[in-house]
Amino acid sequence: MVELKGDERLDYLLAEENMRIIQSPTVFAFSLDAVLLADFASIPLSRGRILDLCSGNAVIPLLLSRRTKAKMTGVEIQERLYDMAVRNVALNGLEDQLEMIHGDLKDMPAVLGNGPFDAITCNPPYFKTPGKREQNLNEHLTIARHEIMCTLDDVVLACRKLVKPGGKVSLVHRPDRLLDIVTSMREQKIEPKRMRLVYPKPGKEANILLIEGVRNGSPGLKILPPLYSHKEDGGYTAELEEILYGSK
Amino acid sequence: MVELKGDERLDYLLAEENMRIIQSPTVFAFSLDAVLLADFASIPLSRGRILDLCSGNAVIPLLLSRRTKAKMTGVEIQERLYDMAVRNVALNGLEDQLEMIHGDLKDMPAVLGNGPFDAITCNPPYFKTPGKREQNLNEHLTIARHEIMCTLDDVVLACRKLVKPGGKVSLVHRPDRLLDIVTSMREQKIEPKRMRLVYPKPGKEANILLIEGVRNGSPGLKILPPLYSHKEDGGYTAELEEILYGSK
Repeated sequence: MVELKGDERLDYLLAEENMRIIQSPTVFAFSLDAVLLADFASIPLSRGRILDLCSGNAVIPLLLSRRTKAKMTGVEIQERLYDMAVRNVALNGLEDQLEMIHGDLKDMPAVLGNGPFDAITCNPPYFKTPGKREQNLNEHLTIARHEIMCTLDDVVLACRKLVKPGGKVSLVHRPDRLLDIVTSMREQKIEPKRMRLVYPKPGKEANILLIEGVRNGSPGLKILPPLYSHKEDGGYTAELEEILYGSK
Repeated sequence: MVELKGDERLDYLLAEENMRIIQSPTVFAFSLDAVLLADFASIPLSRGRILDLCSGNAVIPLLLSRRTKAKMTGVEIQERLYDMAVRNVALNGLEDQLEMIHGDLKDMPAVLGNGPFDAITCNPPYFKTPGKREQNLNEHLTIARHEIMCTLDDVVLACRKLVKPGGKVSLVHRPDRLLDIVTSMREQKIEPKRMRLVYPKPGKEANILLIEGVRNGSPGLKILPPLYSHKEDGGYTAELEEILYGSK
């Protein structure tokens, strides 16, 4: 029996009847962005190692476990979220596949070594750290959303050190940070190779960016078909429903 | 009466009953890309000055003349294309609005001065110069399509010198050059602010990139709604027909 703390609740992980996830509205609850990244990322399906940085309650490795048998490692800096992630691993019987580490991604090259991973995923904080007044009053959500504990450059540098040459780094972020992301990736010799833009509805600007680079890859970006998340009436599009609930 | 040379023909400029354009299949004929750039570019509508680089037969300023009274300058390095452009200006009675210059865009800051323009458009050569064997055997088309007379960096540098601070630079290019473009623009302090991707059909990768930057602009890119150019049956989409034939 799993222990729930504070206002935590036990949710279904999408439509997976046998997968559950502990979350909390005041500590961490996964977003559509995480689901889209888990769908978008190129990962090894059987052998190899996958790393998830800024892992939160481990939602991304939990989602990836539906389509890979590769070993996975998740890293989360907030002890409260790490604790949820560890219970999520146990709750879903993934102890043999998924290991959680409580730590700072900037320290991971020293902990995990240089370049052991075939693929890295990361849903990092999106917002440059604002003034105190603008920061979310909730510390857990503030750290998850703002570049307080790590900047985009910290994330990309850690990815470069932790991924193998030829390995893949997949990020989800805001479209208005696209140029910062590609500049940072290229500085670290992670060449952007695949990009997908998510639009909330036809006629609206993109609001989610998915991008994947290859360490030491050759130039040449493919821009995948756009994804619309919602219909005019507000419901999910068939394509998003396929990602959320379809078999993968 | 306008003179036609060689295999030149007199085409309608889209659906404009009173606008015609001289083109030639072996020298220069305008593409969908030019039409999309003329639709996408932010330009002053009455006062101010607009520059079109790599102007070819002047198709972009001709298209822009439908929606602006601002003075325009076009620059074309190939004398044969410049000659077509000059006849196109006369053919459409635009002598008072549009001036063509036969010259190299790299020389234009010396000719035209630093920063006189409010907006610049450019449909540059797309392809890095390949080996002799791969080059188009037709010299006119080869120069228009390959970076023989100017590279992307040459274009962006000329734009930075020729556009006012706060002025706009709009380019059409191939999506696989996106990273080269934004890297080059940022090096010249032309901050990318608006981007639109054109997809040939639903489910296909993007094949045309439209991007606009502002000299000395602040960071923050908007990614506009995607444009599909063709329907499943091969015909133009309603949205593209609006751009091609709608009133603007």
